[in-house]
Amino acid sequence: MTVENQRPIILTGDRPTGQLHLGHFVGSLRSRVGLQDSHHQHILLADAQALTDNADNFEKVRRNIIEVATDYLAVGIDPSKTTICVQSHLPALNELTMLYLNFVTVARLERNPTIKSEIQMRGFERDIPAGFLCYPVAQAADITAFKATVVPVGEDQIPMIEQTNEIIRRVNRQIGNDILPECKTLLSNVGRLPGFDGKAKMSKSLGNTIVLNATDKDIKKAVNSMYTDPNHLRIEDPGQVEGNVVFTYLDAFDTNKEELKELKAHYRRGGLGDGTVKKRLEGILKELIEPIRERRNELSKDPDYIMDVLQEGTRKCQIVTQNTLDEIKSGLGMFRF
Amino acid sequence: MTVENQRPIILTGDRPTGQLHLGHFVGSLRSRVGLQDSHHQHILLADAQALTDNADNFEKVRRNIIEVATDYLAVGIDPSKTTICVQSHLPALNELTMLYLNFVTVARLERNPTIKSEIQMRGFERDIPAGFLCYPVAQAADITAFKATVVPVGEDQIPMIEQTNEIIRRVNRQIGNDILPECKTLLSNVGRLPGFDGKAKMSKSLGNTIVLNATDKDIKKAVNSMYTDPNHLRIEDPGQVEGNVVFTYLDAFDTNKEELKELKAHYRRGGLGDGTVKKRLEGILKELIEPIRERRNELSKDPDYIMDVLQEGTRKCQIVTQNTLDEIKSGLGMFRF
Repeated sequence: MTVENQRPIILTGDRPTGQLHLGHFVGSLRSRVGLQDSHHQHILLADAQALTDNADNFEKVRRNIIEVATDYLAVGIDPSKTTICVQSHLPALNELTMLYLNFVTVARLERNPTIKSEIQMRGFERDIPAGFLCYPVAQAADITAFKATVVPVGEDQIPMIEQTNEIIRRVNRQIGNDILPECKTLLSNVGRLPGFDGKAKMSKSLGNTIVLNATDKDIKKAVNSMYTDPNHLRIEDPGQVEGNVVFTYLDAFDTNKEELKELKAHYRRGGLGDGTVKKRLEGILKELIEPIRERRNELSKDPDYIMDVLQEGTRKCQIVTQNTLDEIKSGLGMFRF
Repeated sequence: MTVENQRPIILTGDRPTGQLHLGHFVGSLRSRVGLQDSHHQHILLADAQALTDNADNFEKVRRNIIEVATDYLAVGIDPSKTTICVQSHLPALNELTMLYLNFVTVARLERNPTIKSEIQMRGFERDIPAGFLCYPVAQAADITAFKATVVPVGEDQIPMIEQTNEIIRRVNRQIGNDILPECKTLLSNVGRLPGFDGKAKMSKSLGNTIVLNATDKDIKKAVNSMYTDPNHLRIEDPGQVEGNVVFTYLDAFDTNKEELKELKAHYRRGGLGDGTVKKRLEGILKELIEPIRERRNELSKDPDYIMDVLQEGTRKCQIVTQNTLDEIKSGLGMFRF
């Protein structure tokens, strides 16, 4: 118990808006499987946060909670080591968010670079849902409710963590006691995986993702359609590795770094055909996905088990988050019966 | 039970930031005592809302919950007819607010005339706490959680009710079922009582209020210091009634309208001294406040009783608000175990 509590607490999660894909695998899932042995890891299925830009599609968010949970278990997230929970079933998070909203100005939220760029990306402009503007505060509630000290994020999310730490300092200062620990980002050491069409953004709607239960046929099709070096017309021509989607994927998934290095050198000096490189990638992806797909198919046959895992994880997290909320409310001097 | 349920549901309440005073008595308390027989009345001690502009003073808000509850009971709010509850102990309200924030744009909140003028009044300018900007949404959560159809407000609060009805229509439309009834304002037929110094704003910090447990000495002092007509120098001079604070108070508190009419006519034509009019007002206020003060003093001796009333009212309201939340979440298609 003591040892368990001394492990750093990680909070991570996903907006359940679609099945997870290889981009998630590289960006987060793979490392979560590793981290669950050394950390006290909580994974939040952030359905409430997903609604901040999906208010017209509750059905999509609801449905994908089970899909994403199945993805977690399929890649090897172990519910005996990691608690997986459903955000909308942790009422303490709402109460904490509402409390924190009093500690943050509107101007500060509007200055948040992540929010700024996401507003642009989603084309919200003046029609920003208030929930969307406030979601960095909701995220601060998530992180602090778990007293997480380690938050795995992409570089674009760093301002969210800064916002969280500002709130933490404000709360601690007002209470006069460091109830909440500050949190640190755990930056991924791999870059964002592009879509297999080479577009920076991977999304289901663009049809450029490889999902975690992709069939061999899906994988073959995706790899074959990948852009390589447009100037590498004949096998004997020197080819470019940078910006070549096949090599970007090999960088992410090929575990034999020595062979990959030689392959790149060969491609650069000429004499290595795209077909050969694609074949290698196809083999690697098939090998990676096959066991995940099989576990996923098995898990899909037992929806009750998925629900049990979610219910049990959520129950545990309700206790943790409610305890933090009580501690903060009492520290701030709120009314108690 | 059926009859009870057929009564119109009223939601009303106060931000517990100070003891209530004669302004509250005229503006709301008096009519609440009347309404509790014909309506299903809930009174919310809006401590969470009070924090939206008191984030640096939790202690003040906490302390005043008991003060204001004591005021309610002292003026005749009957807990067997009216449920009195503490907002921060109704977690469903936070969850509803967070949900509704997704249905309202930031631009819409910024356009809210009540918020606009309150921002100015409080001197927030660019430093508006996010919680303050969002409080109309929180208020919509309050009203809808109780399915209130009648909301007593001042004219300045009409835009808040419009905002609430917009949210109600949006939620009903999305659910495809009129789960939430629209609400109507119940406008007070008396104007806002000025401070006894004549200032439009009555506030404890300005020291121009008469609290509900004012002593006879306090009342005498307040009435004596009231501005009358500055041109009414000699008793025989004609005096002006309009803008004359003593008459404004008589309009609010003198129940003998016939005599008051004659008194005004006499004052207008001259021959009636300020002292006589003040004496009348002093008598009326003493008679009004004496029983309230005595009940208040009695009640103050039994804080456990006040706590019991609040706890019992809050428990009832937890059930009501949680039921509405469940109904809305289920209607919108949110995830359930």
